[in-house]
Amino acid sequence: MNGGLVPTAMDYELDAEVTLSGVPATPGLVERLVPELAAEALRKTIGPRGEGRLAKLVSDGPVLRLVLESSGARPHQALLALVRRLGEELGRTAKVGVRSFRAPVYRIRFPMDPVPKGPLSLPIPHEFHMDGPVGVLELKDLPEEALRDNWADRTTQLLQEKAKRQAYEGKEQYWALLRPAVPREPSFRGDPTEEMLRRQWVRSGPTKGKWFLGPTAAHLLRTMNRIAVREVLTPLGFQEVVQPHHDSFEILQKTGHLEGLPGEFYYVTEPKTRDPAAWERFTDLVKITRKVPEEELAKLVSPPSAVSCYAQCPTIYWWLSGRTIATDSLPLRIYDRSAISNRYESGGRHGLERVDEFHRIEPVYVGTPDQLVALREKLLERYAHVFDDILELEWRTAWVTPFYMQQSGGVGVEDAQAQVKGTIDFEAWLPYRGDRATSEWLEFQNLSIVGEKYTKAFTIRAQKGELWSGCSGIGLERWLTAFLAQKGLDPDGWPAGFRRAAGDLPPELRFL
Amino acid sequence: MNGGLVPTAMDYELDAEVTLSGVPATPGLVERLVPELAAEALRKTIGPRGEGRLAKLVSDGPVLRLVLESSGARPHQALLALVRRLGEELGRTAKVGVRSFRAPVYRIRFPMDPVPKGPLSLPIPHEFHMDGPVGVLELKDLPEEALRDNWADRTTQLLQEKAKRQAYEGKEQYWALLRPAVPREPSFRGDPTEEMLRRQWVRSGPTKGKWFLGPTAAHLLRTMNRIAVREVLTPLGFQEVVQPHHDSFEILQKTGHLEGLPGEFYYVTEPKTRDPAAWERFTDLVKITRKVPEEELAKLVSPPSAVSCYAQCPTIYWWLSGRTIATDSLPLRIYDRSAISNRYESGGRHGLERVDEFHRIEPVYVGTPDQLVALREKLLERYAHVFDDILELEWRTAWVTPFYMQQSGGVGVEDAQAQVKGTIDFEAWLPYRGDRATSEWLEFQNLSIVGEKYTKAFTIRAQKGELWSGCSGIGLERWLTAFLAQKGLDPDGWPAGFRRAAGDLPPELRFL
Repeated sequence: MNGGLVPTAMDYELDAEVTLSGVPATPGLVERLVPELAAEALRKTIGPRGEGRLAKLVSDGPVLRLVLESSGARPHQALLALVRRLGEELGRTAKVGVRSFRAPVYRIRFPMDPVPKGPLSLPIPHEFHMDGPVGVLELKDLPEEALRDNWADRTTQLLQEKAKRQAYEGKEQYWALLRPAVPREPSFRGDPTEEMLRRQWVRSGPTKGKWFLGPTAAHLLRTMNRIAVREVLTPLGFQEVVQPHHDSFEILQKTGHLEGLPGEFYYVTEPKTRDPAAWERFTDLVKITRKVPEEELAKLVSPPSAVSCYAQCPTIYWWLSGRTIATDSLPLRIYDRSAISNRYESGGRHGLERVDEFHRIEPVYVGTPDQLVALREKLLERYAHVFDDILELEWRTAWVTPFYMQQSGGVGVEDAQAQVKGTIDFEAWLPYRGDRATSEWLEFQNLSIVGEKYTKAFTIRAQKGELWSGCSGIGLERWLTAFLAQKGLDPDGWPAGFRRAAGDLPPELRFL
Repeated sequence: MNGGLVPTAMDYELDAEVTLSGVPATPGLVERLVPELAAEALRKTIGPRGEGRLAKLVSDGPVLRLVLESSGARPHQALLALVRRLGEELGRTAKVGVRSFRAPVYRIRFPMDPVPKGPLSLPIPHEFHMDGPVGVLELKDLPEEALRDNWADRTTQLLQEKAKRQAYEGKEQYWALLRPAVPREPSFRGDPTEEMLRRQWVRSGPTKGKWFLGPTAAHLLRTMNRIAVREVLTPLGFQEVVQPHHDSFEILQKTGHLEGLPGEFYYVTEPKTRDPAAWERFTDLVKITRKVPEEELAKLVSPPSAVSCYAQCPTIYWWLSGRTIATDSLPLRIYDRSAISNRYESGGRHGLERVDEFHRIEPVYVGTPDQLVALREKLLERYAHVFDDILELEWRTAWVTPFYMQQSGGVGVEDAQAQVKGTIDFEAWLPYRGDRATSEWLEFQNLSIVGEKYTKAFTIRAQKGELWSGCSGIGLERWLTAFLAQKGLDPDGWPAGFRRAAGDLPPELRFL
């Protein structure tokens, strides 16, 4: 349906070219058969939702040129059906098959809302312009794969998404205070990383944005880890898993991470071979020149095929993929704390707060919507216990929703607290950044319910009923930084609950 | 010294070409100055260890062609000194400088032991042949960098090393039983990975040779982790550190891993930029085609610049690099258990025993030779306690030395047990592989003292005296596999000590 906008034109116009394996001996066979089969194909594929017609047919030796037009549904579906039937009929009656097909041009008219503010690019041959509120797209030279694989719909969706992004560019993420902070007098006002460096607790690592934690800092990070498990996860029945820390491209395509964040991954490449003979030239060059011969190395490794863990939940969903979870195992509550997260942070690095490598515990929960809402309440309660009673932090929570989610599903400012799907951020004041009212607080943890997005993407089913999922990111370096930024590095300034959890600090190593 | 083998020829003959910034106005200046400065340079650089001479000098406009010959020491050192002095003198007297220099040919005669069995390759232009027991090498077209950076010595060392490798090819690693196994009746004879797969305790991961451990398997791996820390490391005063899990090339060059094992690394590559605009084409192609466009991705990432952790000790040595450790902090005892190890295993993968990704605790110790020998005894004692009293394994230890170490320093079979530097392997019988006498046992742990190799490479010093180091690899997947292979997956078959350490197993998840 073109919504009555342009009543003289169909929404879709597909110029197709079908190549046969030969010319049927019977003259006129093709001219008789194609209209008949096209009508059948259009009726079956377009019929229920719109109208369509074969607008043109020219045969030129073994090549058939035809135009399929339609409204309300896409004519490439009709073409696929037509080609299949044509192959069957010609094979049976004339010993001729369909060798290949392609579309020199595919014209699509579709309403755009919002209308784009500027030019939109596409990585495949095309022309595009707006006709009032209607986008007019001409895809050119589409191979068979593109028709079978429905590039048409993905392309129009992509244009729509880009127009939406243009509309929201520069707008901030939605943020609404949920639980206000209780002010606490900090016992320290310095930058904790600077102070840790001064005391040789940490050393800035050998590669970008990564840190080496000496015994004291490691002890404190491990204490945070233990607090999270003992005080939050174990009491709520979460079980630990140990997951691979390489995320496959396939998994990241299913979650949407690969298309969403490709510039933030550390990619992993494998050697093409383990054979020492193949590596001899590389090895010899390293030995003689004491430098790494980049070009030689590039020849010996495969293209990137995975990424170093970005978040743990994608691979946890993969683990459950294709499985049906028994009712008595719901809500499924698991967590991983072994995979190490890597993010290419580029310019944004600062101390241990914003790093390229960090240790996170990621609880993932899968259950009915009601189970997850109830579990979220319990998680919020346990987290509050940790931050109030053990770490004694000045912290707050906020409901955050990226702009694109604010649109879809009508997440409005007014009813944010009533929302079920979405993310809660936990933020801590960093006194060294300045006044609590005006400085930027540190997001040190989050908690989400994502609905059925991932259970659907990974085909995870419940024995019965709807199955939702969610996750929470416990950033241990961020817990540590938030704590040290407010309480300082001297145990005297630490709350009793944390001192108890930390136990004796390791003896300090002495370097001269 | 050529050892009197070829008394008529010098060991080294360097054809050099020095290009001046101009031709000095005074005729004959160069012809007078160069022999004088060459004599001075030869005296200072070759003099103390051998003899040398300027064998030829031809000046051709601004280009000087000269030949330096020597025995006992390398003439490129004399060339460097000559060039420096020549630049000074010509600058002062004739306002002419040295623009560049190179060596069209560098001939080197050196005794080889062993004599190569077959052809030896080099990755730079050269000719090579044997003259009896003497290698005759002609390096060609060496740039200035090669002369400054002493490629000559590294090249002859490399040829020698290759000849040695040829001599030992096919010989097995040295292995001598240290502590024989006490036979124990296994309570299980199956392949533990097969059984874990059957019970859905593990799932073969989304990328090669990596596993996802569900709650029960993760609980058991975590139990092994806890046993190692509680029973071995904490009682002996080891402190935990948390290290980055990317190893830089620089670190791996210092340890020798990069030239030794380049085909076994998983390499890490960074995005060239985080800018979403630069990634738009990639992102759009993923969205439209649902495939990862490899060529597009290759353009957007940098060449590999690091590897995913291979072993933890290199980065621990890096952490200590350049530091002087106070006497009262020795022996330094630390361990990391957060970095995850990756090895590209290719064909050798089997179950959880031989994987591309594993979790290892790596204790590293740095101290005087006496301290390390004493510590090794204590470690052996604590390990024996774990394997005998808690896991109740059938295990043995062996002294192992790679062939190249058997040569240097005279590590002989007869006095293996008396050796100080070297590696002890811990091996467990895997009943499913067959008879204990004939089947291959699993190396599930090792322990080494490496002497001053790494303390020297990383410039780690003691407040006073000699400083050695060593490390031990506690492979948690291997502990687990060895245990399950002998004891099975049913807690009824487990020794009481392990059952106590493991506590309650998590409730099994039910999948339909």
